[in-house]
Amino acid sequence: MSEVTRLNDLIDALRCLPGIGKKSAQRIAYHLLQRDRDGGRRLAFALQQAMDNIGHCVRCRNFSEQELCQTCTSGKRDQTLLCVVESPADVRAVEETGYRGGYFVLMGHLSPLDGIGPEDLGLNELGKLLDEGNTREVILATNSTVEGEATAHFISEMVRKRALLVSRIAHGVPMGGELEYIDSNTLSRAISGRREI
Amino acid sequence: MSEVTRLNDLIDALRCLPGIGKKSAQRIAYHLLQRDRDGGRRLAFALQQAMDNIGHCVRCRNFSEQELCQTCTSGKRDQTLLCVVESPADVRAVEETGYRGGYFVLMGHLSPLDGIGPEDLGLNELGKLLDEGNTREVILATNSTVEGEATAHFISEMVRKRALLVSRIAHGVPMGGELEYIDSNTLSRAISGRREI
Repeated sequence: MSEVTRLNDLIDALRCLPGIGKKSAQRIAYHLLQRDRDGGRRLAFALQQAMDNIGHCVRCRNFSEQELCQTCTSGKRDQTLLCVVESPADVRAVEETGYRGGYFVLMGHLSPLDGIGPEDLGLNELGKLLDEGNTREVILATNSTVEGEATAHFISEMVRKRALLVSRIAHGVPMGGELEYIDSNTLSRAISGRREI
Repeated sequence: MSEVTRLNDLIDALRCLPGIGKKSAQRIAYHLLQRDRDGGRRLAFALQQAMDNIGHCVRCRNFSEQELCQTCTSGKRDQTLLCVVESPADVRAVEETGYRGGYFVLMGHLSPLDGIGPEDLGLNELGKLLDEGNTREVILATNSTVEGEATAHFISEMVRKRALLVSRIAHGVPMGGELEYIDSNTLSRAISGRREI
């Protein structure tokens, strides 16, 4: 069936999606062609628009279609708070908690082995932002992985040098979690981080 | 983050893919924007090309960019054999076995409850194709589901009326399958369909 090159092109192109292998790509291509051509066209347009028009906010580095994102320009947010996260997906997760301060999005974490250093995470820009003097507290909300912890540690030193308040989100037993099934690392953090009530 | 409308549009549009929910759509959108914009652009182009240019072969109803697909016009295939399948994905599966005859693709199966009758499956066209007199054998390779079996039965009657050979693919224990784990329906078909060796 070598003449259906556009079908094969589509199956190949679908494999750029994370977690989509050859079989899934075939299934998706057939699904769209048989049952949802309009959905496929809408997706094509949305993809092209997003890839070409979404850049990064020059202040917080989050995805934005303008030079400055709405979070950074909003007057309704407490811009003296700065929540440092690894990715735009993390911003979305923190937004869902009701947090209404500012953000700084690293777009990664320190990883010397992969050649990702402080300048790749925009830490020079973060330093300048802190030097502006509008920030009261930096909340470190990087992931609780080895790299995330190392990144948090590095940034905490940067913030302390400027005599600003720096905090790290709490680690411990998740809500609804049963102690029996929690790994000992987490439980150990929960105990050492206990609070008087 | 209401200003990133193109990001939200992309996340919405990705949900037309089968098996992709809200969380997966977010993950895919962020992945493409952060790590694979070229892949995203290629996918947009392939989608648009495929949705607008792939139609159906007027003879076998399989996907085709031309009026007649290459399988139908090929001189290297035994066009006296006609394998009837439910979908283009089934054609791909049968091709992988090395079969080199013709196809007829139903694009579905009989399903009176969903209002899918013989004319929706192109059975009028199949009748005309059989009346042309070039077909020696019709191989029924619809799925082994209730609807697939009913569809095969219906078509077998059509073929018999024209005094042509009609066969059904064998059902039984899959290669490498262990009897202990095979459902009794399949095993029962395997026993009733046993062959002298």
